[in-house]
Amino acid sequence: MANNAVKVPLLSGSADVTQKAKWQLNKRRLLRSRSAPGTDLVPGETNGNKPMPRTVSIFQNFHPSFKRVAIYLAIYLGVGALIFYLVRNQIRGLKTDGILDAIYFSIVTMTTVGYGDLVPNSDLTKLLACAFVFSGMALMGLILSKAADYLVEKQEFLLVKAMRMHQKVGPYEMLKDLETNKTRYKFFLVFFLLLILIIAGTIFLVTVEKLDFVDAFYCVCSTLTTLGYGDKSFSTQAGRIFAVFWILTGTICLAQVFLYIAELNTETRQKELVKWVLTRKMTNLDLEAADLDEDGTVGAAEFVIYKLKEMGKISQEDISLVMQEFEELDVDDSGTLSTSDITLAQSS
Amino acid sequence: MANNAVKVPLLSGSADVTQKAKWQLNKRRLLRSRSAPGTDLVPGETNGNKPMPRTVSIFQNFHPSFKRVAIYLAIYLGVGALIFYLVRNQIRGLKTDGILDAIYFSIVTMTTVGYGDLVPNSDLTKLLACAFVFSGMALMGLILSKAADYLVEKQEFLLVKAMRMHQKVGPYEMLKDLETNKTRYKFFLVFFLLLILIIAGTIFLVTVEKLDFVDAFYCVCSTLTTLGYGDKSFSTQAGRIFAVFWILTGTICLAQVFLYIAELNTETRQKELVKWVLTRKMTNLDLEAADLDEDGTVGAAEFVIYKLKEMGKISQEDISLVMQEFEELDVDDSGTLSTSDITLAQSS
Repeated sequence: MANNAVKVPLLSGSADVTQKAKWQLNKRRLLRSRSAPGTDLVPGETNGNKPMPRTVSIFQNFHPSFKRVAIYLAIYLGVGALIFYLVRNQIRGLKTDGILDAIYFSIVTMTTVGYGDLVPNSDLTKLLACAFVFSGMALMGLILSKAADYLVEKQEFLLVKAMRMHQKVGPYEMLKDLETNKTRYKFFLVFFLLLILIIAGTIFLVTVEKLDFVDAFYCVCSTLTTLGYGDKSFSTQAGRIFAVFWILTGTICLAQVFLYIAELNTETRQKELVKWVLTRKMTNLDLEAADLDEDGTVGAAEFVIYKLKEMGKISQEDISLVMQEFEELDVDDSGTLSTSDITLAQSS
Repeated sequence: MANNAVKVPLLSGSADVTQKAKWQLNKRRLLRSRSAPGTDLVPGETNGNKPMPRTVSIFQNFHPSFKRVAIYLAIYLGVGALIFYLVRNQIRGLKTDGILDAIYFSIVTMTTVGYGDLVPNSDLTKLLACAFVFSGMALMGLILSKAADYLVEKQEFLLVKAMRMHQKVGPYEMLKDLETNKTRYKFFLVFFLLLILIIAGTIFLVTVEKLDFVDAFYCVCSTLTTLGYGDKSFSTQAGRIFAVFWILTGTICLAQVFLYIAELNTETRQKELVKWVLTRKMTNLDLEAADLDEDGTVGAAEFVIYKLKEMGKISQEDISLVMQEFEELDVDDSGTLSTSDITLAQSS
């Protein structure tokens, strides 16, 4: 078994070509390696289609996970509204319509705004509110992690259109640009939405709730940050209908702006590290360290692993795990996998 | 230049050993590859020291970034307290001591608890509060990302001791276990701290603020979740001194519990994917796709890249970037890097 290391070429017709010449032939292909399917930017390249279907497929899979979150939210608010409607006599404060107040109270509680214009007034409602706010926080986290992607995918088409007007580039380059700057686009989109929500909220409070401008802006800030002092809040029926939608979208939107700022920071640092690792001069010591199979030279794959590890993208643990698997697969103990290994593995 | 592909062995004395025998000799070393320095779990192995110094070094680098965050927090609260002390006449509500109330108001605002027991009463203070809460939110995010690591590193020693009592394992295995289950340990630690903070807060509110038990628990929940209805809050001087520390640690602690739950979920899913990729049977098609340099066989390094890509740990973009660098370094165009490439690069 130990002498079974027959190196059968996987691709016919290339056996007579010398290794060196083959390398130069395949250089171009290597730069865009074929390993691990499904991650190529333009799958059209491999199956012969035009690149366009990719653009369509982006809008087709509309994050089924987001649908699930929307259902959770509906159930959560439905149950919350029902419960707080049933115990509405144990809630004190400024009241308008029974069922509307229950929904409004649910939203104000789950987003942790907590104005205090409606507060629980019995031990039962107090404990209910405690349970409700904890589960609400968990749900808000879930929404936060899904909402943006959904939003951005919905807007991606508009973004692509806007970019096409500015730059004269093909759809492939455009999608690539979108891919590399995704976080930045997401940030701008969410920031833009936040501005609209701030302006809409301020105008609404001035016109409907009759607050003066500073008070309206103060109430908007106090709400979106979930501060909710409660000295200014939505007291009319129309105000609370608006508040139900506005508070939920506004608080999530602001949280996402902060999230994307953090993500952009991380990306920038990551990119700097990648640049540093790539431009760092290779020494003989590096060469020795990168030589995984110790054959005296560093192959392309060995070099990729060495550099990615330096960049912190993969860890020694990742490598060790896969290497154990490699050991097991390498039935003929040749240090490489070939068709003979697969055949041996299947026969045993 | 094209014929310069001399394969000089990097390690002397191994030139006469056949590739096959060498592979078997080096198998053990490959499983724990030497590429990319600094990420080995036990550096003692390479420099001949005992594994113990690693444990010491964990406590030595106490996250300098956390120190920076602590300084930011001190500056932020100092400035906040000073400003709100100066405009204390434009803040209405239940007051105790001037400077204490200013600090208390700053904390209640930056954590977005916003009880409403102290509220801005002029346009100036309202706008100040708006600016203060936005910057406070950003700072809270920063603290959130640093605090846990600091905490866990401080507690790591205790964890290691506790584990040593339960399991009869060496320090190496223990650190490895700590590494793989880090998130779980962090979660338990933060959850335990949260429980202590909830109990302490409830007891304090019952004894000092004279609330009944349900009200005290309700106030604790309302505060830690940053809900802050404001019907129950800290009204005495002693209460507010306690609140300043308790609110800050409590809100961060609860947020971290949620963060770790999310992290644990992600890790579990990631581990399932890794397991699936590793146990999936290799076919001839996989072999062909993994064969980066198209020499008919899949080397260890090629296999590692293929599998890590399948796991989603690295992307085609990462690989392409490094491959471009490889191209440039491979001066003699041999498809491998050797000392001759380095020499050529230095001379040019």
